Amino acid sequence: MAENPTAAMLVIGDEILSGRTRDANMHFLAGELTKHGITLKEVRVVSDDHDVIVGAVQALSGSFETVFTSGGIGPTHDDITAEAIADAFGVPCGIRDDARALLQAHYDARGQELNEARLRMARIPDGASLIENPVSTAPGFTLQNVHVMAGVPSVFQAMVASVLPSLTGGQPLLSQSLDIPRGEGDIAGPLGDLAKAHPEVSIGSYPYQRDGVYGANIVVRSSDGAAIDKVITALAAAFPEAR
Amino acid sequence: MAENPTAAMLVIGDEILSGRTRDANMHFLAGELTKHGITLKEVRVVSDDHDVIVGAVQALSGSFETVFTSGGIGPTHDDITAEAIADAFGVPCGIRDDARALLQAHYDARGQELNEARLRMARIPDGASLIENPVSTAPGFTLQNVHVMAGVPSVFQAMVASVLPSLTGGQPLLSQSLDIPRGEGDIAGPLGDLAKAHPEVSIGSYPYQRDGVYGANIVVRSSDGAAIDKVITALAAAFPEAR
Repeated sequence: MAENPTAAMLVIGDEILSGRTRDANMHFLAGELTKHGITLKEVRVVSDDHDVIVGAVQALSGSFETVFTSGGIGPTHDDITAEAIADAFGVPCGIRDDARALLQAHYDARGQELNEARLRMARIPDGASLIENPVSTAPGFTLQNVHVMAGVPSVFQAMVASVLPSLTGGQPLLSQSLDIPRGEGDIAGPLGDLAKAHPEVSIGSYPYQRDGVYGANIVVRSSDGAAIDKVITALAAAFPEAR
Repeated sequence: MAENPTAAMLVIGDEILSGRTRDANMHFLAGELTKHGITLKEVRVVSDDHDVIVGAVQALSGSFETVFTSGGIGPTHDDITAEAIADAFGVPCGIRDDARALLQAHYDARGQELNEARLRMARIPDGASLIENPVSTAPGFTLQNVHVMAGVPSVFQAMVASVLPSLTGGQPLLSQSLDIPRGEGDIAGPLGDLAKAHPEVSIGSYPYQRDGVYGANIVVRSSDGAAIDKVITALAAAFPEAR
């Protein structure tokens, strides 16, 4: 099948690595990219450390067509993503007028002060374009092939919705699955033969144990629906107990 | 505070990157390591691709004291982790007698055949030691500083429990949190000052929006409980509405 565009994600935040927060953005983005025909190839989760973020951004933006980041663009002292992205590309980072105007209007409307801390959310690397935030106004931004978004899931999701239509996707990846209530060891032989005979699809086997029963969900993926149908039919014939 | 030992995690599996499966092992491991006094510094999620796994294992095992992997050690054609770990360290990988004996006993007891596919789960890189799997027998393994474990969460968790007592931890990281029902922009100034005055703790701010109310959970972390108490007391005095 034709190669789809590739993407990577960088999750920034000590709270994920300490186990305090369970990340939700990776799973959301993965699903959205798959629907859009973009292949998510790698995710990295790193701590709130300037040099580590810079290194990860440089590595991922050099290896994949598009990079998405989440986290670290709020008003507090541990929000250091904007400067790190700027440094990764060797550009300055400062308060930008259009971002400041968005925030000013937002806080004016609520009778709140655009103080020094809130103004930090208008720090944008030179040359970046803003990503709209319909949830809480403070914008994300796109610099070269890196889309920088908030970590709060509702805001992250809104920003993904803003960015995704601007990206060229490939063929959406389609999939069908069969649940075979037998141990993977019984399935693996015929499955491997089928995978070898059908390089035009990718076949994954995801084992489970439920109420003492061993089984596996077999997922067949391709951008070619007819190719998937053929393999699923062959699988169902080989394992009549599949459902 | 004293530096704790560092760790990284490598999650291997197309199903995570396609959005089909939401990974649960990262969050579990993060919490267990924090309790054990080991600092999780980075997580990478990569696809079922031999060269990519080899590269990630080499990068992470060279940068951190301990590496944990999840996924790709089952019996099917897409389970390629054992060979990739072996290649990362330049050692051969083959069926090993002690692993085969474990599997033979397991399948004999159930009247099932230890067929060619199941035997793949006895592939162990030369020089590795086995990690016990009390859930479904097929072992994980430890090669140098890399612990290779299953992706099925119940098995992953059991293997972590087998490995963790053998690792030297530092001081367990303690934490206390305060919920301040005000926007981060109101909190950020005093919080930044407090962070600067107390480098012996780390202070994180995790904003939320609930029923239209903006607030933030402020988490103070350190291995020194008295230092945390002092900062929490100062925070509560600065924000009387905190709870």
